[in-house]
Amino acid sequence: MGRIITLTTDFGTHDGYVASLRGVILSIAGDCQIVDITHEVEPQNIRQAAILLSIAAPYFPPGTIHVAVVDPGVGTDRAILAVQAGGQIYIAPDNGLLAVIFERNVNSVVHKVENRSLFLPQVSRTFHGRDIMAPVAAHLAQGIALEDIGPRFDGYQRGLFPHPVITGNSVKGQIIYRDRFGNLFTNISNDDLRQFDLVSLHVRAGYTKIERLSQSYSDVEKGELLCLIGSGGYLEIALREGSAAEKLRFPLGTEVEITGTSAI
Amino acid sequence: MGRIITLTTDFGTHDGYVASLRGVILSIAGDCQIVDITHEVEPQNIRQAAILLSIAAPYFPPGTIHVAVVDPGVGTDRAILAVQAGGQIYIAPDNGLLAVIFERNVNSVVHKVENRSLFLPQVSRTFHGRDIMAPVAAHLAQGIALEDIGPRFDGYQRGLFPHPVITGNSVKGQIIYRDRFGNLFTNISNDDLRQFDLVSLHVRAGYTKIERLSQSYSDVEKGELLCLIGSGGYLEIALREGSAAEKLRFPLGTEVEITGTSAI
Amino acid sequence: MGRIITLTTDFGTHDGYVASLRGVILSIAGDCQIVDITHEVEPQNIRQAAILLSIAAPYFPPGTIHVAVVDPGVGTDRAILAVQAGGQIYIAPDNGLLAVIFERNVNSVVHKVENRSLFLPQVSRTFHGRDIMAPVAAHLAQGIALEDIGPRFDGYQRGLFPHPVITGNSVKGQIIYRDRFGNLFTNISNDDLRQFDLVSLHVRAGYTKIERLSQSYSDVEKGELLCLIGSGGYLEIALREGSAAEKLRFPLGTEVEITGTSAI
Repeated sequence: MGRIITLTTDFGTHDGYVASLRGVILSIAGDCQIVDITHEVEPQNIRQAAILLSIAAPYFPPGTIHVAVVDPGVGTDRAILAVQAGGQIYIAPDNGLLAVIFERNVNSVVHKVENRSLFLPQVSRTFHGRDIMAPVAAHLAQGIALEDIGPRFDGYQRGLFPHPVITGNSVKGQIIYRDRFGNLFTNISNDDLRQFDLVSLHVRAGYTKIERLSQSYSDVEKGELLCLIGSGGYLEIALREGSAAEKLRFPLGTEVEITGTSAI
Repeated sequence: MGRIITLTTDFGTHDGYVASLRGVILSIAGDCQIVDITHEVEPQNIRQAAILLSIAAPYFPPGTIHVAVVDPGVGTDRAILAVQAGGQIYIAPDNGLLAVIFERNVNSVVHKVENRSLFLPQVSRTFHGRDIMAPVAAHLAQGIALEDIGPRFDGYQRGLFPHPVITGNSVKGQIIYRDRFGNLFTNISNDDLRQFDLVSLHVRAGYTKIERLSQSYSDVEKGELLCLIGSGGYLEIALREGSAAEKLRFPLGTEVEITGTSAI
Repeated sequence: MGRIITLTTDFGTHDGYVASLRGVILSIAGDCQIVDITHEVEPQNIRQAAILLSIAAPYFPPGTIHVAVVDPGVGTDRAILAVQAGGQIYIAPDNGLLAVIFERNVNSVVHKVENRSLFLPQVSRTFHGRDIMAPVAAHLAQGIALEDIGPRFDGYQRGLFPHPVITGNSVKGQIIYRDRFGNLFTNISNDDLRQFDLVSLHVRAGYTKIERLSQSYSDVEKGELLCLIGSGGYLEIALREGSAAEKLRFPLGTEVEITGTSAI
């Protein structure tokens, strides 16, 4: 069995765009394993793709090649990146899609994808996912080196990922994502709460207050709101056996503040 | 090529939860084949998952490992089951999800999943699909025995699957599912109709009467209602080249009664 | 690794129908690679399936087996076809689904699927995708010849695919598809425009006029309409960083006319 190539796109699954990526990859690297992360990123929502990719990627084995195509700038002169980070490889347009990956891996090695001999013979001006990123990923799966793809490149976009603001007794972040179950993800991570005595925490999101951090959904009654560190490592606001998003109707970007007393 | 692992969940495909299952499995069992049954079970609808899994599973080869995660009780002390039934293996929370599997396989061998050395090193309290069920399935694909997962367990939930009531000249069941095409599935199976002369059957569903059992959609005119034994082996109410669900607007649970004369 | 089998259906991914196809295929050809083209064809929309299949298929390697199941005539006496065309194989009901494939490959070799020993032992009258097409595809992946499936057949439906009308200085076609991004596909291909000086083109779609053919989305300002030859090789109407479909609200079938001056 060959290498694993994952796909993260905003293509949806109605149109056959994803299928043409798969076909291109399998035409070059017939024994690789293609795995979908998601194709349901909202059209052109780079930040959402950055979050989803960064949550799923760590669960894949070393050597996995992640192809991420949310590419509103296709046809302009934006670069395409091939990045070695944390033992895996990422191929994506240079538009901030890899913001979280870069933050987590300060030693990322970034190359610009430029070697046209690795592309499809005809490169369209509207679908570089199929014509450039998929074949380059497949050639990487077949064993070529990052150096063969193009030169080192340091002028890439690190991306603007909103950081929580940490002060003595509070952390202020925001809601950045809602999942299928109506759980609201914040940009406040487990790490951001290290300074606090966890049993002392209060959470305010918009005008809603939640008086403590729970360990699991079952810590509260059915239909009640709770806060917990979700499975992705970020603070989530949830509703037991229901949808916090529907109850609270917070837009993305709503401020979330955590206050508590110092650990020690 | 390694073993087949199927996935049945209520995760949807927007969030990357399914991807993290796939990543965990492939990190342990790199050559297994991961196949989706569906990820579009309604959030926390255990019965729907039980039906869909039971319809698809028989078409998979012996030795297939089915992982089913619809798990509203995650974080409570509900058990996780590993079940050998009909030559295949099932991993699921102990919440009735395997009701139909248990009914069909009275000789099911049930183990409780308890061997923590098979789990991910960090087990969250909100995502046992990723942290426990996926890695256990992958280890099974790699060849460990059911005994290595945990002890035999007989206190599991058989699940409450509604049975049709069969009397001399009638069978009373209910509508339990509607599919994409608007076909209404009942809980009345081929077997439940063995006692009848099939050409004599009348069907009543709510206030609607259908005078006979058809063999295929083409037995009636376009736009007409019909009843047939669907491809899953259950009585279905359908509308030729249209949606019976839209026409009839029956809620799930609507009573369906079949009357006829005895075979012989 | 075995052969590639692609799936194109109108089954959706909610019901487990696709899963039973996958199970049947893997039970016969355990090492083949199953790849989804799409399962989101609108129920019974044969033309849409024909378009999507024809756009994705060329990106798959020679020898790929494409199974396409949009089959409103299941249970009638419509034939099932096994077709060799352009180095690949297609299995589909004889209902026009392969219209574009036949147009592009005048030397297609068509057989009727008749060898019952290749089907599932029990063939339902409502799900030939699972009971006939999937197992036949899997046997083909295992190496049987087209001749083993059934006799040559020339009475198949070529399908009615709307052709643009080309006159001296104009091409009249229509809108045949809208994709997830709101791009409107026409039936006017790159080839249909060979006679024109491309810089001279004007496009009229309904009452909307677009004064030139663009090379990529970035040729116009954000929010502006444009026309280009899309990645599938057909003229598309698009809106930069937005949805042309939402702005224009053209129904499928809307006339599109291109006028220009001859390319000498």
